[in-house]
Amino acid sequence: VRGLSYDPDTPGTVSLRSDLSIPEPISGEARIRVRLAGICRTDIEILRGYVPFRGILGHEFVGVVDAAPENVDLLGTRVVGEINAVCGACCACRAGRAHHCEARTVLGIAGRDGCLAEYLTLPVANLHRVPECVPDEAAVFVEPIAAACRILEQRPFRGDERVLVMGEGKLGLLVAMVLARHAKELVLSGRHAEKLAIAERAGIHTVVSDAPRSTGFDVVVECTGRPGGLTEALSRVRPMGTVVLKSTVAGDTTAPMSAAVVNEVLVLGSRCGPFPPAIEALERGTVDPTPLISDRFVLADAVAAIERAGEPGALKVLVEVSC
Amino acid sequence: VRGLSYDPDTPGTVSLRSDLSIPEPISGEARIRVRLAGICRTDIEILRGYVPFRGILGHEFVGVVDAAPENVDLLGTRVVGEINAVCGACCACRAGRAHHCEARTVLGIAGRDGCLAEYLTLPVANLHRVPECVPDEAAVFVEPIAAACRILEQRPFRGDERVLVMGEGKLGLLVAMVLARHAKELVLSGRHAEKLAIAERAGIHTVVSDAPRSTGFDVVVECTGRPGGLTEALSRVRPMGTVVLKSTVAGDTTAPMSAAVVNEVLVLGSRCGPFPPAIEALERGTVDPTPLISDRFVLADAVAAIERAGEPGALKVLVEVSC
Repeated sequence: VRGLSYDPDTPGTVSLRSDLSIPEPISGEARIRVRLAGICRTDIEILRGYVPFRGILGHEFVGVVDAAPENVDLLGTRVVGEINAVCGACCACRAGRAHHCEARTVLGIAGRDGCLAEYLTLPVANLHRVPECVPDEAAVFVEPIAAACRILEQRPFRGDERVLVMGEGKLGLLVAMVLARHAKELVLSGRHAEKLAIAERAGIHTVVSDAPRSTGFDVVVECTGRPGGLTEALSRVRPMGTVVLKSTVAGDTTAPMSAAVVNEVLVLGSRCGPFPPAIEALERGTVDPTPLISDRFVLADAVAAIERAGEPGALKVLVEVSC
Repeated sequence: VRGLSYDPDTPGTVSLRSDLSIPEPISGEARIRVRLAGICRTDIEILRGYVPFRGILGHEFVGVVDAAPENVDLLGTRVVGEINAVCGACCACRAGRAHHCEARTVLGIAGRDGCLAEYLTLPVANLHRVPECVPDEAAVFVEPIAAACRILEQRPFRGDERVLVMGEGKLGLLVAMVLARHAKELVLSGRHAEKLAIAERAGIHTVVSDAPRSTGFDVVVECTGRPGGLTEALSRVRPMGTVVLKSTVAGDTTAPMSAAVVNEVLVLGSRCGPFPPAIEALERGTVDPTPLISDRFVLADAVAAIERAGEPGALKVLVEVSC
């Protein structure tokens, strides 16, 4: 059985292994045969030492339930899966913050082999059925779309917001697509004309980052992951406005936080989100992520897929596993 | 008329001027004869270039209304004053965020001479009568106590919070005194034993910063103003908890903001606060700030007062103007 493996003892490099065993689901879990997987910026950051992960990479997938000893009715179901496997017993779980479980494993990120492989296991509770009308190419985006939906859980919109999304990468584009319908006005700023064009075709207003800058946004979502991103966000949000940080990047960020104090800005970290609204957005067609697909590889070429995903021009790189 | 003047052309130094004219209140304003003024960390930061202010320093005071052409009933009233003088017409004012008025002047901080002088002017709307039972030595703390009360406006406590206040300076001590009654558990961390002792005598649990560190606080209030303050705060707050930034310091802050993203921490800038609850806390005696007074100077020695306030051992330095 094959999978794309990362070993922090040889940082920056990945290797395709073909000697993996088929994982056996433990109690409460299911085994999924992966059909299609996506590569995320976080995967690239892991190679740069963002977290000390060791094992199979990948956390965006669509697949078919292949074994589920306690839930045989799920066999053959096409699913996507939430990436945090939680204990249900720790303080965070009991306080209703399960996705911050202190004992959690995270698919392809922390203590749990990921989805850039033929098989993975996840708790049955993490799985969500994919409606028939949603093709694999769209379903593989459920995890990052859910991360975009998370913003609306944390900071509900009233509909009168002026919103700036910074960063025309995969996450910025998806965040803009998700938030656009909830905001009075939304602008996506970025550098690459061809990526901004994807947003424009989805009806989203875009500006080139170097253009004269408007300020006073109610909400600024930082998706650039660049060192100066927070500084720019603080300069463009209105007093008492919200800056949402979505990028997880290795290393420290430097910013004039006294501006956040004087303007009483709320800076909100935002990570994984709810799958049901993401699946619903795909089912209804309110979000179409497929124009973000820039490349498709087969699992045998997964090393090249990772390399491609790390290039500046790339958007979503997909890895076909068994579809 | 005398006042302590700062000129950014000679950074780091202040001078006592005695050639000032008595200010004439414009429409809607009153002139106050200053009785007692306090020196704040912000005043020291202004000398370090935090904001490009030019004029009379100082924004903590208690005084007596000396002229109020449109409000003669106020003459002789002992008052404290909110420091933001606002336009009432800009977007921020109309949106109910008046203390972020885009055209505001701020007493002794931005475009308006401050209170380290014999007289000042402020809008009548900014003034609050001081109850007779509250002596000048306590009333002069209303402004910083209000800044502490601001936290409860922005992030109301439910009473079950575990709170860490970082920093045993003036602001940290006042924040701890204000929040202690609203939290289930509150800890003040700091370095100086004699300053922590003031908090202990007020019934507040304190720890020396170098002691083994407990984590998982629901709310961490950063009052150290040190470059590493935010980094430590992020390491001590629970996932989905709140870090309140109260210190305004010159320059940039460096912190691992990816920790804020992964843990979905809310980082909240917090500045000026409501005067009524601060005055009420003094009237009821629930907060007694007077143990924070470390030095008293007369206005003629205001230069020495500023120097003293910048020393590490100092707490609140008061300047007696006409009391």
